[in-house]
Amino acid sequence: MPQSSPVDPSGSLVARLDLPPLGTGPLDGTTFTVKDNIDIAGHRTSYGSPAWRDAHPAPTHNALCVDQMLAAGARCVGKVVADEFTYSLDGESPFFGTPRNAKAADRIPGGSSSGSAASVANGLADFSIGTDSGGSVRVPASLCGLWGMRPSLHRISEAGVLPFMPSVSTVGVLADGFAHLEAAIRVALRSGPTPQAPLQRILVLSDALEIADQSVRSQTEAALEDIARRTGLPLEPIRFSQIVGEDVPLSDCNTQALRIMQTAEFQSTVSNWIEACTPELGFPFSMAYGNVLAFDRIAALDGLARCERLFESINACLSPGTVICFPTTPVIAPLKGSLNTMDAVVDYYDRTMTITAFSGVGRLPEVSVPLLTVDGCPVGLSFAAAHYQDEFLLRTVSEMTGQRS
Amino acid sequence: MPQSSPVDPSGSLVARLDLPPLGTGPLDGTTFTVKDNIDIAGHRTSYGSPAWRDAHPAPTHNALCVDQMLAAGARCVGKVVADEFTYSLDGESPFFGTPRNAKAADRIPGGSSSGSAASVANGLADFSIGTDSGGSVRVPASLCGLWGMRPSLHRISEAGVLPFMPSVSTVGVLADGFAHLEAAIRVALRSGPTPQAPLQRILVLSDALEIADQSVRSQTEAALEDIARRTGLPLEPIRFSQIVGEDVPLSDCNTQALRIMQTAEFQSTVSNWIEACTPELGFPFSMAYGNVLAFDRIAALDGLARCERLFESINACLSPGTVICFPTTPVIAPLKGSLNTMDAVVDYYDRTMTITAFSGVGRLPEVSVPLLTVDGCPVGLSFAAAHYQDEFLLRTVSEMTGQRS
Repeated sequence: MPQSSPVDPSGSLVARLDLPPLGTGPLDGTTFTVKDNIDIAGHRTSYGSPAWRDAHPAPTHNALCVDQMLAAGARCVGKVVADEFTYSLDGESPFFGTPRNAKAADRIPGGSSSGSAASVANGLADFSIGTDSGGSVRVPASLCGLWGMRPSLHRISEAGVLPFMPSVSTVGVLADGFAHLEAAIRVALRSGPTPQAPLQRILVLSDALEIADQSVRSQTEAALEDIARRTGLPLEPIRFSQIVGEDVPLSDCNTQALRIMQTAEFQSTVSNWIEACTPELGFPFSMAYGNVLAFDRIAALDGLARCERLFESINACLSPGTVICFPTTPVIAPLKGSLNTMDAVVDYYDRTMTITAFSGVGRLPEVSVPLLTVDGCPVGLSFAAAHYQDEFLLRTVSEMTGQRS
Repeated sequence: MPQSSPVDPSGSLVARLDLPPLGTGPLDGTTFTVKDNIDIAGHRTSYGSPAWRDAHPAPTHNALCVDQMLAAGARCVGKVVADEFTYSLDGESPFFGTPRNAKAADRIPGGSSSGSAASVANGLADFSIGTDSGGSVRVPASLCGLWGMRPSLHRISEAGVLPFMPSVSTVGVLADGFAHLEAAIRVALRSGPTPQAPLQRILVLSDALEIADQSVRSQTEAALEDIARRTGLPLEPIRFSQIVGEDVPLSDCNTQALRIMQTAEFQSTVSNWIEACTPELGFPFSMAYGNVLAFDRIAALDGLARCERLFESINACLSPGTVICFPTTPVIAPLKGSLNTMDAVVDYYDRTMTITAFSGVGRLPEVSVPLLTVDGCPVGLSFAAAHYQDEFLLRTVSEMTGQRS
């Protein structure tokens, strides 16, 4: 089992780097790290898999999103750990170790952007570029007490990023505060001055609160009351069945839609390589991969149509000026090493992805804010808005949480 | 120089296949071919490059879009020629030959979905799956006299398709008529019954008509007059500068935006592989590739922001119920072998991409309809609508052109 380097108590670094800025701009004076499924020129990209790393040459170009940050004045200080093929929400890599959860050292950091979260939370960088398909930016942000944003699907270029599930995967950012999050995201989104609607409605996704642990739920409700007072707007509870106009549970977002798209797309990307090259696989991934191999995509094609219908329904409900709130994760970080039974894995994944899949199928921008503390551990409160309303969401979150934009 | 197989007078086949349907549905009884940058299980994918083909193992899964067609009742009859790395609008491959333009045998078929167009136009299949980043479905559809559609960016899954420019590339369809086009596209889009606005406005993109050859322009105007009579709606000429609210030419879509995004993204995808593996390159591609290598992406990052602003402006103008019309290409197909001087290449590419980049930066769905004939050669008339208005566009095109939906 690999250990953290003595010079890296965060356990997040795959390689310490010092790539100077390539220009000046809104990120002047900031530092960032890059998840190891995002290309850095001259360094092999592992995607969390030593076998993948060794089988592929080093890229000659940075990922485009990395160059955007460097050109805006930021300095890249490291390449950081990703879960194997970024196919996990744990952050416990059998190959690269478990990056340290700075707020709860005996607990997992969450994944798959585990090194991104740990590098920021442990003070190595101001922000980190990660990726998010089923929650891989939002979950570690929630569990490590960071700000994290998954923008609208496809708004950030994926050139130089393994788009391992191209209809689902986004580039995102984790940061130590709102200022760095907003600055980095606006650079990556190429945000303009386009005026967007003022905040008009605050929806609360009831089903997500009901799924959460009672202590997470009561903290969420208290934080939302503060927000209602600050904004002077009422909280409007809404059920998933009202959003989509069908009597279906929130878990449909995951089990009947997003997970089907993810698995079908994963077969056409990473599976093709694994089947051809039979690399060494880590134990946690090999367990999950059994389900990928057994998945009958032809029988499941209705799930792809379900994704499209849910996208339409969710966005028809989220009119401009509307934000929807829910706990980012239903739980605090599980203890390290505790996800070693099927029951524990299913409980953590099914409940977490029931919530995270909502923005996934909606292709929504979502910001996780470190507003909650349960048993001394952080949990995020999430805010989401309609597809492409990223700039509205950033401004709204700053207003709702009293941050200066 | 490779020759067409005597059993394939179309010159389009890389491999003759017979993959039976995997289900029944709206494509029952139809046949299709697949461009050779889209995975077919058990067959190596070339991306138009023998070196790429030989360096990568055969996929174990079909691309998801191929399985969608098979599951809906279609039979796959062949893998067909693509231009090298799909980085061309010519259809003259130094490795796989020049698929036959069935309507003008002495002329190029257009590219990069050259084999897709030739296989359909020569009667081998009812439709073909291609890809389009800068016009690679629309241009061969126009030059070969076929129906072709590039849907809204990212609406069709790219799993198993080389997304060589992930912010730009779409999967699309070429077909022998409206019925097959609509059926195949609706399967790939997972179209639902969502009602969309009725046709209310017909815009005509004046700049595109002015760029076109005079004979293409006069044919376009005559066809549009027919459409105005059929629909009872007036034609509303509009200039690109009116759409974006700035005094800029239509060519900005290409030179100041789309081409910059394309080149920057291509560096992070195909260039990384070429630089690491130094494969044999065909002469036409190696000429174009010189520009890719010399491109300074840091200096050009403003072009990425320009893409985002143009996307916003174009879609703000194209309200629901609005369609915009223009010739798909400004010219008929050039003669085979005529694109052998820099002047000829620049004239063909710059004028063509000035038009095709409009839907590119707008992320618009666009249908090219074989309505025009100039000097005995086909040219397409294109119809585009706002991002995600694909189903509106299909229904509108059927009404405007008198097709039965």
